[in-house]
Amino acid sequence: MPTYRLEVAYDGTGFHGYARQPARRTVQGELEAALSKHVPGVVTSVAGRTDRGVHATGQVVSFSTDDVLDTERVLRSLNRQLGDEIAVTGITLEGDDFHARFSATSRAYRYRVLNRAIHDPLLARTVWHVAEALDIDTMNQGAALLVGEHDFTSFCRRADESSLVRRVLWAEWQRHDDLIEFSIGANAFCHQMVRSIVMALVDVGRGRLQPNDVKLILDARDRQGSRGVAPPQGLTLVQVGYAEDTSTP
Amino acid sequence: MPTYRLEVAYDGTGFHGYARQPARRTVQGELEAALSKHVPGVVTSVAGRTDRGVHATGQVVSFSTDDVLDTERVLRSLNRQLGDEIAVTGITLEGDDFHARFSATSRAYRYRVLNRAIHDPLLARTVWHVAEALDIDTMNQGAALLVGEHDFTSFCRRADESSLVRRVLWAEWQRHDDLIEFSIGANAFCHQMVRSIVMALVDVGRGRLQPNDVKLILDARDRQGSRGVAPPQGLTLVQVGYAEDTSTP
Repeated sequence: MPTYRLEVAYDGTGFHGYARQPARRTVQGELEAALSKHVPGVVTSVAGRTDRGVHATGQVVSFSTDDVLDTERVLRSLNRQLGDEIAVTGITLEGDDFHARFSATSRAYRYRVLNRAIHDPLLARTVWHVAEALDIDTMNQGAALLVGEHDFTSFCRRADESSLVRRVLWAEWQRHDDLIEFSIGANAFCHQMVRSIVMALVDVGRGRLQPNDVKLILDARDRQGSRGVAPPQGLTLVQVGYAEDTSTP
Repeated sequence: MPTYRLEVAYDGTGFHGYARQPARRTVQGELEAALSKHVPGVVTSVAGRTDRGVHATGQVVSFSTDDVLDTERVLRSLNRQLGDEIAVTGITLEGDDFHARFSATSRAYRYRVLNRAIHDPLLARTVWHVAEALDIDTMNQGAALLVGEHDFTSFCRRADESSLVRRVLWAEWQRHDDLIEFSIGANAFCHQMVRSIVMALVDVGRGRLQPNDVKLILDARDRQGSRGVAPPQGLTLVQVGYAEDTSTP
């Protein structure tokens, strides 16, 4: 069956997460409602399910249908229906075996922290405000210990998957004045993995942990040893990579 | 009486404008409610009243009181009470004759336009999305015609002031990829002046007006000849200048 790929961006603030839920406003629910005008009863797959309050600029969604769609027309229709909080930035016809989740070979997330005494109302929906001074050098020392293939049980909220081994491709903090930004890429992420990692690294940055404690937490393979999770609004799924892409995220 | 100056930032999305109104949530209402814990019955003045949906990063508010305040303590208290949408970024004791509005010698605003085919959900609250291609060079030609002292009747919504003569100090568009940003400074602005100017200049940028039409509209001194107003969410009051400041906004 012809399979289509959507590139999707959203402000997660007003949604109960990505995944469809009965009687709740979700990104998937809104998207499928809009798509169903063109593909009745459509069911979509997604590259990275995001939690309540988490954003995306480069989410990928796929669905199959017997019909051949006028992609330009569907794109305009979706954006007209979806309003300000969700944008579909592209729609393409893929090979029949394409699947947004199972075909994906990598995901990249960004997490932003506003690091100054007083918060910024115009950034409140997209940053975590941390007033204590953060030492980005020690945060990067801790982050470097996570790169590579590891069992991330200590940084996964739910252990409902057979394996929690993931391969982290990069993990780095950069400072832009008051704003510090974490960029992390992996083949895949388990549930709340980025927010758990951010929480541990922020605890390193404010001196509650030493950089090497991140390694000890990782090696313990025990969720009880974690530092909890950073708040959702700082997190954005920025890109998903596929084997056929010539560019890596 | 001792007079205090507050530096205030806010996301205007959730407020019925800056100015206090009965039974409506306004920035002034929230700010005075928080301040009244320290200064019962406080009445504040403001440098630039902003309309519903308009933001500020550098608003200035003043009030007088017989009491000497512990400014650090009041600052912390205000930010604790005000939540995410309003931040008080500074509080200082000024000379007795200081007045946020009457002492101000200049104001600077920023207006942001997202200029691409598809909108961006994470910028929706702070930009005007214009899908048609905009020619920033002609917009700057039009903007240059507004610099200097003019009667801005054509760009003022309400003519309830004796004079609508204002002195525009600078007016310039800059492009940063898809985002184009207008920076304008003046000794003072009449009501909806920036949004009226932006609307005319965007009409220049998309070819509906010629740059010189901006001069014709200005010279007509007639609100009927205006192009209407750009939407509020793109507008932010960024700075207010005072004669005693060594820096100009």
